[in-house]
Amino acid sequence: MSCVAEDLVSYENLERIFNPRSIAVVGVSTKGTGFASGIMVSLKAIGYEGTMYPVNPRGGSYLGFDIYRRIEDIPGEIDFAIIAVPASSVAEALESCRKKGAAGAEILSAGFSELGTEEGIALEREITEVARRGIRVIGPNCFGLYCPKSGITLLPGPDLSRKSGPVAFLSQSGGMSIDFAHLGKWMGVMFSKVISFGNGADLRETELLDYLCNDPETGVISMYTEGVNDGEAFFEALAKTALIKPVVIYKGGLSKAGSRAVASHTASMGGNKVIWESVLRQCNAVQVRSLPELAQTSLAFARIPEGTYNRITVMGGGGALGIAACDAAERMNITIPRLKEEISESILALLPKPGSSALNPIDVANPHVPPQVLKEVLLKAAEDDSVDLQIMIQLFYHYKVLSSALGVPVKEVTPYRELADAVADVVRATRKPVVLVMPNNKQDANSLDVEEMRRDARAAFLEKGVPVFDELDDALRAITHVSKYYARRGVLTGIKSR
Amino acid sequence: MSCVAEDLVSYENLERIFNPRSIAVVGVSTKGTGFASGIMVSLKAIGYEGTMYPVNPRGGSYLGFDIYRRIEDIPGEIDFAIIAVPASSVAEALESCRKKGAAGAEILSAGFSELGTEEGIALEREITEVARRGIRVIGPNCFGLYCPKSGITLLPGPDLSRKSGPVAFLSQSGGMSIDFAHLGKWMGVMFSKVISFGNGADLRETELLDYLCNDPETGVISMYTEGVNDGEAFFEALAKTALIKPVVIYKGGLSKAGSRAVASHTASMGGNKVIWESVLRQCNAVQVRSLPELAQTSLAFARIPEGTYNRITVMGGGGALGIAACDAAERMNITIPRLKEEISESILALLPKPGSSALNPIDVANPHVPPQVLKEVLLKAAEDDSVDLQIMIQLFYHYKVLSSALGVPVKEVTPYRELADAVADVVRATRKPVVLVMPNNKQDANSLDVEEMRRDARAAFLEKGVPVFDELDDALRAITHVSKYYARRGVLTGIKSR
Repeated sequence: MSCVAEDLVSYENLERIFNPRSIAVVGVSTKGTGFASGIMVSLKAIGYEGTMYPVNPRGGSYLGFDIYRRIEDIPGEIDFAIIAVPASSVAEALESCRKKGAAGAEILSAGFSELGTEEGIALEREITEVARRGIRVIGPNCFGLYCPKSGITLLPGPDLSRKSGPVAFLSQSGGMSIDFAHLGKWMGVMFSKVISFGNGADLRETELLDYLCNDPETGVISMYTEGVNDGEAFFEALAKTALIKPVVIYKGGLSKAGSRAVASHTASMGGNKVIWESVLRQCNAVQVRSLPELAQTSLAFARIPEGTYNRITVMGGGGALGIAACDAAERMNITIPRLKEEISESILALLPKPGSSALNPIDVANPHVPPQVLKEVLLKAAEDDSVDLQIMIQLFYHYKVLSSALGVPVKEVTPYRELADAVADVVRATRKPVVLVMPNNKQDANSLDVEEMRRDARAAFLEKGVPVFDELDDALRAITHVSKYYARRGVLTGIKSR
Repeated sequence: MSCVAEDLVSYENLERIFNPRSIAVVGVSTKGTGFASGIMVSLKAIGYEGTMYPVNPRGGSYLGFDIYRRIEDIPGEIDFAIIAVPASSVAEALESCRKKGAAGAEILSAGFSELGTEEGIALEREITEVARRGIRVIGPNCFGLYCPKSGITLLPGPDLSRKSGPVAFLSQSGGMSIDFAHLGKWMGVMFSKVISFGNGADLRETELLDYLCNDPETGVISMYTEGVNDGEAFFEALAKTALIKPVVIYKGGLSKAGSRAVASHTASMGGNKVIWESVLRQCNAVQVRSLPELAQTSLAFARIPEGTYNRITVMGGGGALGIAACDAAERMNITIPRLKEEISESILALLPKPGSSALNPIDVANPHVPPQVLKEVLLKAAEDDSVDLQIMIQLFYHYKVLSSALGVPVKEVTPYRELADAVADVVRATRKPVVLVMPNNKQDANSLDVEEMRRDARAAFLEKGVPVFDELDDALRAITHVSKYYARRGVLTGIKSR
């Protein structure tokens, strides 16, 4: 099933843009100041393997590359250009790139329609006109493109991950793009593409959504928008896309003060809150309300198989944890069903006493129960038909006391690797997802070792395909988004997932 | 204004309990296993300066202390006892402590009414009976007391802070107590007392609330409860107390599944959600819904002066940040007013261009604006009468790129100390609070230095009295709790705060 008529988007050009064999970097200074020099440093640092051609009328060299005085002087072909010259010179540079045969360019320079001045608007119109003659443009006033596979990266993105994954991110805001790209790196949200399109003088939400809908490398589309250009076309593309892939949308500026702020940020028409929310619901887009929620929801869609997960177990060491889980789950319409009696009894037989409880929530009584026992508990609990998904809360920071007492590094006394292996076995055997919640209540200056261990632990679980959240409420909210999306999609398409 | 008749609580005994010159630790094993040995290690580690008398019928020595075979054999007076012997021997040990003249005891042992068994209930009744003969009891099935001033600490609490502060915490759950005590240490919530009272066979919520209401060392009372013993008395004490000090309550188990879990955790009667919520509102208690929210709200009450803060500025580097702030603020009924034109203009003159905006939210355009400029902006914005409080968002992690480029440690390139000084000057000069929001979107394994810098930065701001939150939504929610509490208290008492 294709989202839109193929002719809407020039796929071949976009493929060249995301996977350029060569890039002209226009506006590089030999002093290393400015965006163009910055992006060259970033491209080198992230390990971009193609050819870079820096350009500056003064010539010279930078980072060991000869600087070409004019775009026309570049000896080979260019697939893509990164333009960071003063606003008034951008259109000319873009036109030269077009003539040179570039498929597209990203324009990092600011000073266009976002200023709200006549001059800025006119300069942006010039860009649009050049683009219509045959070069696709990302920006201006943006941080550009990040594609882990090809090694192109955002403006301040020298250290982003080179591991590809199923999540695409479309954003008007450069800040959101770089922040989400950083968040994704450690949270385990792996990207196909991140596109910061800024003012969107040429390519914008609708066409890019169409492209990502058809992109086989993208399984989940996330989006930050402050306002769209052509509401009707966008919502049509959104409705079509959301039948095929989850689309997670953070619409900024739905409040009164927010829409005023939008006007001075991207000069978008913010739009009415009630209308936005009802249209997003109709399209079965997943609406989120903050960057952390956007990232957590993208993680859940990428890591939890298609399905609805309304009935869960929660396992943790400490009675209050389970109670908190019940309360939060009810607020989100998730059920924590009482387990069948014989299952509860077998679980209770495995647990330390007194203090444990196995009705669900499962209170394993303390934070130091061995992985092998937790594995048995999860296997047993999954036997109950009324369970769709299991949440395991681990307060790993409690191992710090043990570490100090034994004089052994906290990494060595915390059995997170064994537990990650155990959980992977459970998921394989039961075919029911397990989600890890790993709060860190111990963040004092003397517990940096706990944080180091936690980062290792997160990586170990992610490696096994297990999504990790810092707080229970975050996990529950993300799971709810996943369930609601697939349930509604099932109704809309008649195709039922698991 | 006193909360309750003085005779309700035996203050002198409670003072002795919280500040014991000597403690009997009953049930210490020479092998170092078990709760009693654990608490001795913790007391030693935290630096308790009084005398400890370990007790075990087998004698011997532990940690360099001679173990007494019987409580009666202890040579000196004891103010307090920590009892961790099997449930069936607890009452006898307690009676010996009473005869020995102890003012009180905490009973760490479990195996009482929380089991729901006849035997457990009977054993707990015995404790209550001994208590009535003249010794106050904390527990059983608890983690005990933490008092930074006197150096007594919770069961697994060897590394809690020794710095006292205005926040008291009352909790049925031991897990919540130790977790909040750890959270407080780095978040800057400083405690007068933390009381984990478990099953509450003797001292429980109502009497302890009365005590804390009258405690001059306590300015903010926080509480985790799963259910209360005598609803009428408790709510009466609560209403009286909340007229004098803010009381922040996290009631666990308000959902159906939650109340079932409560029954198997502390055997409390959970109570009805609608009733609880309406009574808490009537009492002007501050209801929160998670441990993180409890900690953030306690921090806000402890660090933000009495007052209502409904109109704020938000300053950050990046337009989308400000828009997110507007949207979140509107959800919480906080206004981000447009600043007076001449003030906006003077602020804009201070900021880098293009990309900045000064209408409020104030977009300073990038994350590297020098502290001196941010100070001028805050001073200027505070001149607007329509501003009660200012929020500053700092994405310090962006300094990592600069640190890597220069080959200088991130701690050295991030000007957080200068900024903390600048903010302290602003608060002093303007008498309007400033709150710092410091997200960390860069938590990959190679950025542990960023986290280390952030912990230092947090401490530097806290040192200057500036509360710090990880996420904007957390800060706004906590500020809302503060404003609502003081506004309502003003109505109830006729006393208006600022």
